[in-house]
Amino acid sequence: MKAGMGIDIGGTNVKILILSDKGKPLYSDRFKTQSERGLRDFCSRLGLKVKEALRAVKLNIKKAAAGMAGDIDSEGGILRYSPNLAGWKNAPIAELLRKETGISFSLENDANMAAWGAYVLELKKSVRDMAVITMGTGIGGGLILGGKLYRGASSTAGEIGHCVIEQNGRLCGCGNRGCLEAYCGSKAIVKRALSLIKDQDSYRKKYGIGDEKKINAAALAAAAAKGDKTAISVWEETGFYLSLGIGNILMLLNPSAIVITGGVSKGERFFMPALKKGLSLYSIKTPLKKARIKVSKNPDLGSYGAALFALEL
Amino acid sequence: MKAGMGIDIGGTNVKILILSDKGKPLYSDRFKTQSERGLRDFCSRLGLKVKEALRAVKLNIKKAAAGMAGDIDSEGGILRYSPNLAGWKNAPIAELLRKETGISFSLENDANMAAWGAYVLELKKSVRDMAVITMGTGIGGGLILGGKLYRGASSTAGEIGHCVIEQNGRLCGCGNRGCLEAYCGSKAIVKRALSLIKDQDSYRKKYGIGDEKKINAAALAAAAAKGDKTAISVWEETGFYLSLGIGNILMLLNPSAIVITGGVSKGERFFMPALKKGLSLYSIKTPLKKARIKVSKNPDLGSYGAALFALEL
Repeated sequence: MKAGMGIDIGGTNVKILILSDKGKPLYSDRFKTQSERGLRDFCSRLGLKVKEALRAVKLNIKKAAAGMAGDIDSEGGILRYSPNLAGWKNAPIAELLRKETGISFSLENDANMAAWGAYVLELKKSVRDMAVITMGTGIGGGLILGGKLYRGASSTAGEIGHCVIEQNGRLCGCGNRGCLEAYCGSKAIVKRALSLIKDQDSYRKKYGIGDEKKINAAALAAAAAKGDKTAISVWEETGFYLSLGIGNILMLLNPSAIVITGGVSKGERFFMPALKKGLSLYSIKTPLKKARIKVSKNPDLGSYGAALFALEL
Repeated sequence: MKAGMGIDIGGTNVKILILSDKGKPLYSDRFKTQSERGLRDFCSRLGLKVKEALRAVKLNIKKAAAGMAGDIDSEGGILRYSPNLAGWKNAPIAELLRKETGISFSLENDANMAAWGAYVLELKKSVRDMAVITMGTGIGGGLILGGKLYRGASSTAGEIGHCVIEQNGRLCGCGNRGCLEAYCGSKAIVKRALSLIKDQDSYRKKYGIGDEKKINAAALAAAAAKGDKTAISVWEETGFYLSLGIGNILMLLNPSAIVITGGVSKGERFFMPALKKGLSLYSIKTPLKKARIKVSKNPDLGSYGAALFALEL
């Protein structure tokens, strides 16, 4: 039996998943990334986990795909830079992992793997052109064009989070102004909500957010569900700004589908009407009518996408 | 000998061009579009011109490509809508032309044909992923991805002019706010300059712009060349706004090249430094470094592109 191994390397957790060629999960594992322990330590720990996985499934797996956040040279298997991973630079991760495990690794941007996952799982490969927007703390994106993963000339395509939607707009974590991420990433949404909440203690009490818990996107979705006007207006604002990011993708790429994933998608009910209203302001209607906009509930599109992608290698 | 026929159908003029398979021009003609005379009248006039061209070159041409501004259903050979062409709607132009001439027509967006022209003539097919921005009265765009014309799901891809760069920004001719076209199309540039020029009569005299001539992009480039501060600042502003349109394409598509064409490119000397400075504000550097930004001096990329595209059919 053919099987695919996918790895999702996040800033906090690493997920390992082995899928059968029919897409059935055969094995899964996760561990803490702890990137501050250094690159070689990380590759050695990941290598052990991969070997453990291979022993467990007893299948002849020769190829794996790993997705990670950051600027990836996918041809060279090199992480050029990742702000989330202790600032690792020019790290030859594919080669280090091959040495540790004896199998070959495709290194890809994590949003690209999520895009592949959405393409196969959410859309059953029924479209040729689609985009995925990963809306977490930051915003990433991946493109499937002509039924293939589109990487661009140096495998950084899909950076929708750092497309500018307002000239000289809000300061983004990246240092530039007006990036979509500065409006619609969960960090930006929470910051905006906190600036509007006068008394955080009573807000916590009112919406059952424990003292130890952060007010995050999920908490704001819960508050909106209970009718909180501040949360509702922040979600509406988010939907409008998101319409500019998505509208621009529709104008430029005319895809058949856009899939939204990540923690922010928990606010779907509250941002979707404003998103649709914002899109209706675009005057070229053909690409608006053509594209299905869907929120994925699958929290593991990254690891599933990587394993499904490995099956194609 | 194989030859390709390309037609560029603009709001004012129609250009017909026949190229040999080596790209040598064998025949060219042009006539007034006069779309107000109606669709059938137009197709009949174009049909006669095409038959005249075929008789003149005495070659067995079976296929032609025609580019026109507007929302094109390239699969069906139908112009869905064009604001420039007397509001023509759902016009089965490819079929009408086939009936008139006996040869088959591929109907494409004009910026897509300019993109193909730039891909072959400006870049000698040396890249796989590139974008063309046509900067005339309005702003269009075309994409070559993976070495192929990318049309998207309903052949409207590449509408960079109607990507929003400023939420709730300047009113665009399309009805939406903040579109790139509302900042960098020649109409927008001229409008901005006129709003800054206090005395248009003395301005005309000073820069040798005749009374009968409009102050257009070329006149503003000439004024800037003579050191006019208003014109220079308008071009600098244009360069900055253009950096947001181009920067967003770089983030999303990571192409190897961007080719700028059209009347506005006459201001290259004056907008290019601000464009480059604007791009340097983007924080993800890999796609910035990768992309060559080039201005094409060829005023006929549309008809050349269409003829070259026809050679591939």
